[in-house]
Amino acid sequence: MIRTAPAVLDRARAYVAPAMQDAVDGMSPELLTAIRYHLGYADADGTPVAAGGGKGVRPALAVLSAEAAGADAGVGVPGAVAVELVHNFSLLHDDVVDGDRERRHRTTVWALFGVGQAIIGGDALLTLALDVLLTPATPARARASAALVRATDRMIAGQASDMAFETRHDVSIDECLAMEQAKTGALLSCASSIGALLADADNRLVDALVAYGAHLGVAFQAVDDLLGIWGSPDVTGKPAGSDLRQHKKALPLLFALAVGDGADDELPRLFAGGSLSEADVARATELVEARGGRERTEEIARNHLGLALDSIADVGIPTDVHAELDELARFVVEREF
Amino acid sequence: MIRTAPAVLDRARAYVAPAMQDAVDGMSPELLTAIRYHLGYADADGTPVAAGGGKGVRPALAVLSAEAAGADAGVGVPGAVAVELVHNFSLLHDDVVDGDRERRHRTTVWALFGVGQAIIGGDALLTLALDVLLTPATPARARASAALVRATDRMIAGQASDMAFETRHDVSIDECLAMEQAKTGALLSCASSIGALLADADNRLVDALVAYGAHLGVAFQAVDDLLGIWGSPDVTGKPAGSDLRQHKKALPLLFALAVGDGADDELPRLFAGGSLSEADVARATELVEARGGRERTEEIARNHLGLALDSIADVGIPTDVHAELDELARFVVEREF
Repeated sequence: MIRTAPAVLDRARAYVAPAMQDAVDGMSPELLTAIRYHLGYADADGTPVAAGGGKGVRPALAVLSAEAAGADAGVGVPGAVAVELVHNFSLLHDDVVDGDRERRHRTTVWALFGVGQAIIGGDALLTLALDVLLTPATPARARASAALVRATDRMIAGQASDMAFETRHDVSIDECLAMEQAKTGALLSCASSIGALLADADNRLVDALVAYGAHLGVAFQAVDDLLGIWGSPDVTGKPAGSDLRQHKKALPLLFALAVGDGADDELPRLFAGGSLSEADVARATELVEARGGRERTEEIARNHLGLALDSIADVGIPTDVHAELDELARFVVEREF
Repeated sequence: MIRTAPAVLDRARAYVAPAMQDAVDGMSPELLTAIRYHLGYADADGTPVAAGGGKGVRPALAVLSAEAAGADAGVGVPGAVAVELVHNFSLLHDDVVDGDRERRHRTTVWALFGVGQAIIGGDALLTLALDVLLTPATPARARASAALVRATDRMIAGQASDMAFETRHDVSIDECLAMEQAKTGALLSCASSIGALLADADNRLVDALVAYGAHLGVAFQAVDDLLGIWGSPDVTGKPAGSDLRQHKKALPLLFALAVGDGADDELPRLFAGGSLSEADVARATELVEARGGRERTEEIARNHLGLALDSIADVGIPTDVHAELDELARFVVEREF
């Protein structure tokens, strides 16, 4: 099922995009071409393009979390900008680390502008995020910054685990879930609560939004894992089966490996030889599905979507804001199914 | 002249090293081997080594700046740790960007553990720095964090300029100085004042320490530029003439180019062909010196050392602390001359 993008994405973009552009415009000119390209503001030669970038889920969550605390959307905007900048910092670096040459149907920054631009440009986005959030350094902004730094820390730890998993053959499902909670969940969780922190909300609401975002992160990453194998290249911008080709220890594969019959099993043997042929990828895909890897990963996505929605059920969030948080979560999880 | 390392370096290390080790020990296990290696705590296989790391100039400045405000050294420690972590973040990334395979006579992290470890490990050091500083997020720590983020921002912009300069042939001396002020001066300036910020010092003292550190940064970088051409490989850990070999647009070369006789000049022609032979490097070194590039860069180092010392002459810093700031500045600038 393809869901229509929720109206809140456009509503939040109207608040956040100008502040985001302002922040980016102040960046170092030597980095600006690559950064504007990466953010979808411009072509590789600097020509502005009409629209682009991601769906803006994280900024929308940040804005909604301010509104959840009864504040104006604008209160969440510095948080929205900061979280979106941190997200893009991680994309720039991850593409180098993973050697990915394509993202969102476009050549990645390192592949187009060089590794230096991707590394230093990413660094600049991270410090810009904190600059936006800490100026001025009010107590609420300091609290929000501390939360963003901790989330970024966890995201980086998750990426480190993900990287380590590629050369390990004994990754457990629990380890994978913990990695995904860190790599994806930490920043989504921060996005879902940073507006409330900026609005000086009480701990009960902040904690509920933190939990909502954390579960949403697990569900989101489970869907991402499914798309990494069964996603249409049109939708993902990556070749089908690309996670298997890259030996990524994602949930569907781990579920399938867990029910295999040990050392002589066909599935691990497909990965033993280093690079997989197209036939290997097709066979691995078949085996992962036949052994329930797809179904069990879908179940995780569904369960954590439910847990996300439960987390915010009863903490006094205004009805209209609650409805938008509900709709956004469903959209994120059910996006391409 | 080789100066003896000032006692304040050891004194500050005694305060800062345990806090630094504590912070690092909490890092993600998948990054810890590379990070501990980089910081000189351990060999590549994880075996602890007795001593290592840099001279610890930045942490010493941070501690002194707290004492300059009349506070205990301990007040400056979170700032010292944060600044040292940011410095090491930048080293990890710069080595990848510059393709340097050696630092402090040891193989660099990317060359030994891979680019992924250097990028993600560097990212982790940066967020750890802010985590240390923002926990707890008191107003003084928030102010110090905002200053550190701005300094890091400037440092990254400086690195971006430095990177851009390598493919430009029209870099002016002013542009080079501005780049060096950003790349080196911003963090030294922050190190020199962050303790005072943590001690809630008044603006007059903070501004004086900011100026001291900024001038010290220019002087320090000028010396670094001299060492990049004339430094003994034993001292620098890099081959002699390495800045020229890498086409680095550092001050001595720019001064020498500025007095050349235009397009037919011998000096720019040496760089026109891409990679320089050993004979080219020797000839370029000779020309740069003969045209006063060495002398004028030494003059900049001397002048800015003087300006650094002037900046803190009359702002009520306790006599003993003032003497240590004075000695440390002289040591930094006169280190290998």
